[in-house]
Amino acid sequence: MLIEPGELLAQINSPDDLKKLPKDKLVQICDELRQFIIDNVSVYGGHFGASLGVVELTVALHYVLNTPEDQLVWDVGHQAYGHKILTGRRDRFHTNRVYGGLSGFPKRKESEYDTFGVGHSSTSISAALGMAVGSKYKKSNIQHVAVIGDGAMTGGMAFEGMNHAGVSDSNLLIILNDNCMSIDPNVGALKDYLTDITTSHTYNKVKDEVWKMLGKLSKFGSSAQEIISKVEGGIKSTLLNQSNLFESLNLRYFGPVDGHDVNHLAEVLNDLKDIPGPKILHCITAKGKGYEPAENGNQTTWHAPGTFDKVTGEIYKKKPSKPQPPKYQDVFGHTLVELAEMDDRIMGVTPAMPSGSSLNIMMKAMPDRAFDVGIAEQHAVTFSAGLATRGLIPFCNIYSTFMQRAYDQVVHDVCLQNLPVVFCLDRAGFAGADGPTHHGAYDIAYFRCIPNLVVAAPMNEEELRNMMFSAVAEEGPYSIRYPRGTGVMPEWKTALSKIPTGQGRIVKEGEDVAILTIGHIGNYAVEASEELAKEGLNPAHYDMRFVKPLDGELLHEIFGKFKKVITVEDGCLMGGFGSAVIEWMTDHGYQAQVKRLGIPDEVIEHGTQLELHRECGFDPEGIAEAVRSFSEVAKAK
Amino acid sequence: MLIEPGELLAQINSPDDLKKLPKDKLVQICDELRQFIIDNVSVYGGHFGASLGVVELTVALHYVLNTPEDQLVWDVGHQAYGHKILTGRRDRFHTNRVYGGLSGFPKRKESEYDTFGVGHSSTSISAALGMAVGSKYKKSNIQHVAVIGDGAMTGGMAFEGMNHAGVSDSNLLIILNDNCMSIDPNVGALKDYLTDITTSHTYNKVKDEVWKMLGKLSKFGSSAQEIISKVEGGIKSTLLNQSNLFESLNLRYFGPVDGHDVNHLAEVLNDLKDIPGPKILHCITAKGKGYEPAENGNQTTWHAPGTFDKVTGEIYKKKPSKPQPPKYQDVFGHTLVELAEMDDRIMGVTPAMPSGSSLNIMMKAMPDRAFDVGIAEQHAVTFSAGLATRGLIPFCNIYSTFMQRAYDQVVHDVCLQNLPVVFCLDRAGFAGADGPTHHGAYDIAYFRCIPNLVVAAPMNEEELRNMMFSAVAEEGPYSIRYPRGTGVMPEWKTALSKIPTGQGRIVKEGEDVAILTIGHIGNYAVEASEELAKEGLNPAHYDMRFVKPLDGELLHEIFGKFKKVITVEDGCLMGGFGSAVIEWMTDHGYQAQVKRLGIPDEVIEHGTQLELHRECGFDPEGIAEAVRSFSEVAKAK
Repeated sequence: MLIEPGELLAQINSPDDLKKLPKDKLVQICDELRQFIIDNVSVYGGHFGASLGVVELTVALHYVLNTPEDQLVWDVGHQAYGHKILTGRRDRFHTNRVYGGLSGFPKRKESEYDTFGVGHSSTSISAALGMAVGSKYKKSNIQHVAVIGDGAMTGGMAFEGMNHAGVSDSNLLIILNDNCMSIDPNVGALKDYLTDITTSHTYNKVKDEVWKMLGKLSKFGSSAQEIISKVEGGIKSTLLNQSNLFESLNLRYFGPVDGHDVNHLAEVLNDLKDIPGPKILHCITAKGKGYEPAENGNQTTWHAPGTFDKVTGEIYKKKPSKPQPPKYQDVFGHTLVELAEMDDRIMGVTPAMPSGSSLNIMMKAMPDRAFDVGIAEQHAVTFSAGLATRGLIPFCNIYSTFMQRAYDQVVHDVCLQNLPVVFCLDRAGFAGADGPTHHGAYDIAYFRCIPNLVVAAPMNEEELRNMMFSAVAEEGPYSIRYPRGTGVMPEWKTALSKIPTGQGRIVKEGEDVAILTIGHIGNYAVEASEELAKEGLNPAHYDMRFVKPLDGELLHEIFGKFKKVITVEDGCLMGGFGSAVIEWMTDHGYQAQVKRLGIPDEVIEHGTQLELHRECGFDPEGIAEAVRSFSEVAKAK
Repeated sequence: MLIEPGELLAQINSPDDLKKLPKDKLVQICDELRQFIIDNVSVYGGHFGASLGVVELTVALHYVLNTPEDQLVWDVGHQAYGHKILTGRRDRFHTNRVYGGLSGFPKRKESEYDTFGVGHSSTSISAALGMAVGSKYKKSNIQHVAVIGDGAMTGGMAFEGMNHAGVSDSNLLIILNDNCMSIDPNVGALKDYLTDITTSHTYNKVKDEVWKMLGKLSKFGSSAQEIISKVEGGIKSTLLNQSNLFESLNLRYFGPVDGHDVNHLAEVLNDLKDIPGPKILHCITAKGKGYEPAENGNQTTWHAPGTFDKVTGEIYKKKPSKPQPPKYQDVFGHTLVELAEMDDRIMGVTPAMPSGSSLNIMMKAMPDRAFDVGIAEQHAVTFSAGLATRGLIPFCNIYSTFMQRAYDQVVHDVCLQNLPVVFCLDRAGFAGADGPTHHGAYDIAYFRCIPNLVVAAPMNEEELRNMMFSAVAEEGPYSIRYPRGTGVMPEWKTALSKIPTGQGRIVKEGEDVAILTIGHIGNYAVEASEELAKEGLNPAHYDMRFVKPLDGELLHEIFGKFKKVITVEDGCLMGGFGSAVIEWMTDHGYQAQVKRLGIPDEVIEHGTQLELHRECGFDPEGIAEAVRSFSEVAKAK
């Protein structure tokens, strides 16, 4: 079902078409764009609230800027649906986030309007500043705009970017899209501060007028420039004790402005084009704007609600006919509370993912022991290390893909000091529809090279619970990776028991070929074995449970018995679990044929997890095929 | 030669001894402590300017605080020599940075006064906040102090920490040690801002007085607390438009104070103990304070000058009798300028390491094309990515150990987008005296799992030059790792020629055993071969040059010919170069005995590079021994 656009939107195939509209049509085009997003997402799912919140900003930017010459960078990119629809991708928009279809995020390969690929937070200022400095060097006077949310602004690299921008003398406009939300409500001192300055109108207004006047003057050539520079100096010293956070960093601050008044936004953006140097425009917006249930309901729910009835606002939920296995994240959330009730040293830490990680369960049950520290993965890890030095045992939950942000802190602040922090890596393996920026593909490789760090992955809910339980007793750093989505045990609330660190287990005895799996993906091997049994093939299957330390005893048994081994992991082949197994094999003088199944050394796009596993050849059929080909070779001999 | 302390210092074996001194002895103890540092470093080398700059602060902190109960965290740790000397390590101080001796940085294993191991920048606020939150949870009312330089303050995670601290209601004091320097002079908007507020005394003084009064009131119990909280609210809204950057983040700002007035510092610190909540004290200090050549000379030189004549200030330099090979960093610095002169797309980027990376050569020659972005590795990488989108080719030079800070940006902003950024990883392999926090041990493992990224390492100066030259033509991400220290070619300025990406080379034909090396460490294999030749052993030697892509053609030749292979790398064995080689071998169905030499999976302490290589068994003798043991096995058969 292709969604019909409104009559005006139907004529907009590029920003050039948009620019041809008279100003008095801007409100209508915003309405139609908003409706088109609602119509699409209600049917096809995807991110919702963020794009509704920037409809007017998106229209105003493409109306005023000369895109794609002018460089527009969207931070994170959840909010870029309107941008995609206006830049020639309206007719393909129903393929958003579908295997082979449009990406859910801006992506350079997809469109020249997508100047910078995004997905992770807080990159836009650095990227746009690089572009601006590049343009300055090339003597090009195009515009460079970074649109960044107040949530993303708490990520340290945004601050690093501003610190450089403030002395760069480059043509950069940062638009602070202030909606008080990340996926969950924002936290931290910056949020409070932004609320404060928003309510301090008079001062801001006076300043705005002065800067605007200066901007207009700047058209009058270099002697005017000189006067301006002197006047600015004077203003700066006068205002010094009145300067705000952004002006402290030498960014001219404008606003706050109403981010839903498209005509005013267009005017302001037009004025700002004339003002040289780095500057910031503070826009107040509402996530979910214009769709009542999203705007006034639970904004976390409406961040990415799945499909829904656009008339009633009812979010569709599949009603299962029988009990379903839980999500891994919920097993984590509930088990952590259970453990914390038994052991008062246990704490919880999440960087802005309370609902995504289910740490919100503990935050509600034990508010003094569970912390959302904002979009700040680096801080989350070192803060956890600090807690650990005081005799506490923090569980620091970070998506695999975002753990990349805190890599140095894991090495330098936790593992070199051998501190008892338990890292729980949600969304390990393919993220699915979010695509390559969010795939948790590399964590096994980048974690297993760190000394002192245990690297574990559960094959099911019970193992996850037992690993969490065992990690508490470890007295050193311990990591547990598990995928997005559900496990396999509807009755998941099993009794807790210890798993000795580094101990794997045999899932199924067999002959000829041994399959070694790590984590949830082991269930595919179970499926494969069932299929192969029908064909008379009977591979053994081991759930290794630990990448580090590997179970040497079990491996001696395996390599003593089998000359054909298959390793399976939902992670990169380069340096991953299979690599660890063949390191062990080589070090111990065994010689076997080893086939490693996992993510190849290339960028894998978006799709369902199963589609991507199939593409990479480690879905159940891929595993079965690997066993067959080994067995055929065996038979042929 | 053991350095004699002054008569007062000789009596200080712990902070308890210090506390027993009357106040009027504080200046003398500072003088003696400063002298002891000068006497030691002039003879034994080490970091210098930073510790001289905080002598008074160190004495005041240990005089006022109840260490080690109270938690004191030094950011980076270059400045902690005085702290070490006052906390029971005076008699061992001459072993500083020596194999088996004291660490050059605070280290938990070394002393209970070292509450948090440091080395990398900007971690102290997060760590101390974790401690403070932990103490609050445990209802302990000890003090928590983070001492952080204005350079380290530009690292994004410092901002992340402050954003959380501002809403944490925890007992944290951040001391901003403002000396306008990192190793090189500081850059960025924050630096300018700090200078501005320092010169704005009246406003700061008024505010100080108010806060101090409130702090004193807070002793009068909970009803006073309530009044204070109301008064504070009032002050906050009054001062809002006058608030400074730190107060924007809800940190109470005090200062600036003279960081060299020990008596005043002790008073201020004492007052601050009574003021609840997160707060920041701005101290103005001078790096190198009290030693004229360091204080008023080139502060970058005096950051870690090596040994020197303390009377004349002459830094000792070994005068070589014949031409010496250059440092790798200088080959990088000069070659980059040479390349940039030929190709105007080439730019240079360093995060606060212009002298350490030798990018200062380009910064001087081409100031519009080379950028020091401050201590901000994340920004450095994404800024480079932004430059690359504008058709430029940035060389982004980051020490291997600091690249851990920008791991996500390398993955997400550069490699997923396949942008032509050239990463130069200086100090790859063992850092030497700086120890485990600075060893570049993991980069091969954490880089080779990233799609699109070339991973190269030169065996000598000529290869470094040619790799840099070749990287420009690559049109995708390219990394080059090289060690701290000098190469092997006194005549290093060779003609540039392309090395096809992924092409290794044979260094020496041989028989029985093949040695495969990556990077500079290959020269050890040359030495080993020379030694072995005397014993009649003749291993082949291949300089693989690329970890990724591996030279498949060459590997077919090697594994076709040799059944005994030794891999050598100055990097971690887990997932490293040797691991890549055996992955290739297994994937291609070869079966050989492979011995992998490199850094084992444990924390290796400090020492000279050669000492550490020997400890890990891949110094020349270690390599020779590996060949011998293989050959003996061969002979025995």
